[in-house]
Amino acid sequence: MRVLGIDPGIAIVGFGFVDKDGHKLTPVQYGSIETKAGTPQEKRLIQVYESAGALMDKYKPDEVAVEKLFFNRNVTTAFAVGQARGVIILAAAQRGLPVAEYTPLQVKQAVVGYGKAEKRQVQEMVRMFLKLSSVPKPDDVADALAVAICHAHSVVLTNKLNGVPKL
Amino acid sequence: MRVLGIDPGIAIVGFGFVDKDGHKLTPVQYGSIETKAGTPQEKRLIQVYESAGALMDKYKPDEVAVEKLFFNRNVTTAFAVGQARGVIILAAAQRGLPVAEYTPLQVKQAVVGYGKAEKRQVQEMVRMFLKLSSVPKPDDVADALAVAICHAHSVVLTNKLNGVPKL
Repeated sequence: MRVLGIDPGIAIVGFGFVDKDGHKLTPVQYGSIETKAGTPQEKRLIQVYESAGALMDKYKPDEVAVEKLFFNRNVTTAFAVGQARGVIILAAAQRGLPVAEYTPLQVKQAVVGYGKAEKRQVQEMVRMFLKLSSVPKPDDVADALAVAICHAHSVVLTNKLNGVPKL
Repeated sequence: MRVLGIDPGIAIVGFGFVDKDGHKLTPVQYGSIETKAGTPQEKRLIQVYESAGALMDKYKPDEVAVEKLFFNRNVTTAFAVGQARGVIILAAAQRGLPVAEYTPLQVKQAVVGYGKAEKRQVQEMVRMFLKLSSVPKPDDVADALAVAICHAHSVVLTNKLNGVPKL
């Protein structure tokens, strides 16, 4: 199963494709979609939508996992990030891909086993899980991979609960 | 010039097409896009995106005006509304339509001439401006028409400031 993890934003969208085979996780491709400051928001939204769709078409994920809101961010930021999330979720839905959402707390618990883990710990666990030589940059990329790992783990759990031992 | 005013939301999106000829405003079509509670958000976003796009294709607005964030709403709501706005702005941008944004304060000032006007006063002014027999329902529709009127007024002002007497 291939998971696409997304850390949405309007300036930077982190993405990470991770293959899951039993308990083994393999990074396929990861990086960021970046839009220039000063570009009208509608142009930025088109760019995010088209880039996300092109990545989905190229790397063909089976499922998409998106980081959910930060409760501590302000409303203006939430609006802008919400808009970017909207067009990414739209791109996934138009391709019939299931979309799961995880809060930062859920991601930390899944990746580090501790909901109050620091960003650095999460990044280091991402690096170890995926056997990368260094932590991917910018942070948004590591965050996107963390969401993908979180989803991969959750899927195993869900299947276990349903009596399916392994994907 | 034809303006499409939008009051975005995930459950109800109000829309209103208004024609502007000099100082005369004529309602062309107005109503709401509604998505059912309990429907997965990705399905709702597709529905909003496709319905908004179909309306733009049918009524061919020259410009789109969207209500901007409510600062007093909570972050969770802002996220959901942001997602809906994102796909609507995307639909407009894909058709090359300019998108303007107005805060509720700006809308009230433009429609009632008073930023602290009550919802009821705004709705009554919308009814009068557009010579409607009653206030359109639900509130989201009247709000969308108010945004369209606000934009129509602003465009006149902008053109006046630029030395263009009339559209």
